[in-house]
Amino acid sequence: MSKVVHGGNIDEISRNFNLDKSKLIDFSANINPLGINTRVKDIIIKSLDEVEKYPDITYFNLKSAISEFEGVENKNLILGNGAAEVIFNLVRAVKPKKVLLPAPTFGEYEEAALSVNSGIKYYHLKEEKNWIIDEEINKYINNDIDIVFICNPNNPTGTLTSKDSIINIIKKAKLTNTIVAVDESFLDFIKEEENYSAMRLIKEYDNLFIIKSMTKLFAIPGIRIGYGISSNEDILNKIEALSVPWNINVLAEKAAIYSLKEKEYIERTISYIEEEKNYLYNELNSFQDIKVFKPSVNFIMFKMKREINLKLELMKRNIIIRSCSNYEGLSDKYYRVAVRKREENEKLIQALKDVIK
Amino acid sequence: MSKVVHGGNIDEISRNFNLDKSKLIDFSANINPLGINTRVKDIIIKSLDEVEKYPDITYFNLKSAISEFEGVENKNLILGNGAAEVIFNLVRAVKPKKVLLPAPTFGEYEEAALSVNSGIKYYHLKEEKNWIIDEEINKYINNDIDIVFICNPNNPTGTLTSKDSIINIIKKAKLTNTIVAVDESFLDFIKEEENYSAMRLIKEYDNLFIIKSMTKLFAIPGIRIGYGISSNEDILNKIEALSVPWNINVLAEKAAIYSLKEKEYIERTISYIEEEKNYLYNELNSFQDIKVFKPSVNFIMFKMKREINLKLELMKRNIIIRSCSNYEGLSDKYYRVAVRKREENEKLIQALKDVIK
Repeated sequence: MSKVVHGGNIDEISRNFNLDKSKLIDFSANINPLGINTRVKDIIIKSLDEVEKYPDITYFNLKSAISEFEGVENKNLILGNGAAEVIFNLVRAVKPKKVLLPAPTFGEYEEAALSVNSGIKYYHLKEEKNWIIDEEINKYINNDIDIVFICNPNNPTGTLTSKDSIINIIKKAKLTNTIVAVDESFLDFIKEEENYSAMRLIKEYDNLFIIKSMTKLFAIPGIRIGYGISSNEDILNKIEALSVPWNINVLAEKAAIYSLKEKEYIERTISYIEEEKNYLYNELNSFQDIKVFKPSVNFIMFKMKREINLKLELMKRNIIIRSCSNYEGLSDKYYRVAVRKREENEKLIQALKDVIK
Repeated sequence: MSKVVHGGNIDEISRNFNLDKSKLIDFSANINPLGINTRVKDIIIKSLDEVEKYPDITYFNLKSAISEFEGVENKNLILGNGAAEVIFNLVRAVKPKKVLLPAPTFGEYEEAALSVNSGIKYYHLKEEKNWIIDEEINKYINNDIDIVFICNPNNPTGTLTSKDSIINIIKKAKLTNTIVAVDESFLDFIKEEENYSAMRLIKEYDNLFIIKSMTKLFAIPGIRIGYGISSNEDILNKIEALSVPWNINVLAEKAAIYSLKEKEYIERTISYIEEEKNYLYNELNSFQDIKVFKPSVNFIMFKMKREINLKLELMKRNIIIRSCSNYEGLSDKYYRVAVRKREENEKLIQALKDVIK
């Protein structure tokens, strides 16, 4: 596989290292620790007979549910087989000569850009500024840059970019005919979403393209669903024209329609993440050898101050974490862990104590 | 939607014509009439907890199961979110200046080709020759043609192309550096598959690319899975590089691995289709006003000899058939129906009797 290394690849790990997959605790994938909503699971079970039929090729009900959830219109929406497909279809539509990427950031933007032979320009974030994406990025936006990707909060650093900064980036990008692709896949995990989300800006700025995954919040990465939102008709039409028909499977369709109405589950998730994030952050902070970066959502990045292969050592204890060594701008000193359930988080902390001593 | 009209769009039809979807009998989608194998359905139910995890990004077990089923090696295989994605990824990799399409044929080849701005050249099949694709097609293969698509058996005509003809087409195409994409999605429905399949030729000819859907045979169009097989490393690598990660959802993955081992279900399907196809063919043939084209698999094309909007008339009776009016080379006189269960086929015949008198 030429694919970049991702978290959540426990099948591969269990095969390669001969580990019992059922015993592994996966801190490498940033999925809602509450797990799939049981009522959504019931909907999936009830919908099983629908797999004998093609999905609705227009996805009318699904689009309506998402539009209502996001407060946008159906016509501003495109769907993807996971946010990954949304990202790929965006670059397929824009065919960028060059994209601008903060470093470090989610690897899929680069992978997608390279798949259409785009050049890559990095804007290196600074550890001493807690990896913040601020308006310094505007210096890198010029006529050569066709798309700039902003992951908000950024993955793997967890750093949030303020809505004001996003607006300034969009305005600068407008002058150079640059699309600002804002990935808000993790933003539903926080209460103060409105302070950060660019969703209300789509009508005003047609160079804004928002990417969202439904995988993380609703804990359904196995059935794949994501979407893109923009008021840019040219890009939306191009994406529609190059999209593979029936790209959302029926079970993802049914699960999504129902999940979006489950406000209580979303609120419970936000509270749970808030509490466990703080627990895990404080616990990690108590290690002298670890420097923890302040998290915002359901994952935490930290740095090991001394030489140790933490991933391997924890793997021996059936705990899988994400090494950040393959992120541009990071090294093998950096790791990312998902916020999981309390007892699992405790196991991680205990294992770290064993390993680090 | 800019998408071509397909069969199987009963959601859209029920919405547009205010029909009760649960009462409709869908003859417009060519799905195995036995329905999903109940043991495969059990596997899907047992695998439901897996939707909380990402699919194995390498799809090792799935690729191994398909390779064993087809008698090829894992390295010759690429996977798609339905055969539709395989077709799109093939044209994205090859970036054809022009593709050659028999007319009529499955609309997805043209849609995919247009999505990468390819030119289209038609090779018009002849009704008086029962729409056969023979070596006359070689006259149309020249240096301008980067891909020729052969659907075998052809959809919607049902006409089979012999393996000898396929070999001759591949040899001619080799001289002009043309890829021969053979879509064998319906070939598993017949006993004499070996007389038609190009699968054993992939090692010998690197300009051969075979497309298969698992949707039709295993009656799982809702969870989407297809694959491509070739020995052409250049194309396979290009497709791998442009493929969206995790493009097969976990339930499709599990269902497919299990389905391919269910030889008895496949044999039962073949026998059932053989019998019902003949029943439906003979019944349709008994109408003076209908000219039926000899079917090979689980769908039948026919021509209405007099003026009547058969699709609309049957829809009033809750029966959905496929009008072939939007196929290049056909007109609103032509229709396609799937072979379904006996009692449903009888209802189709009865409704036709009511409508045609």
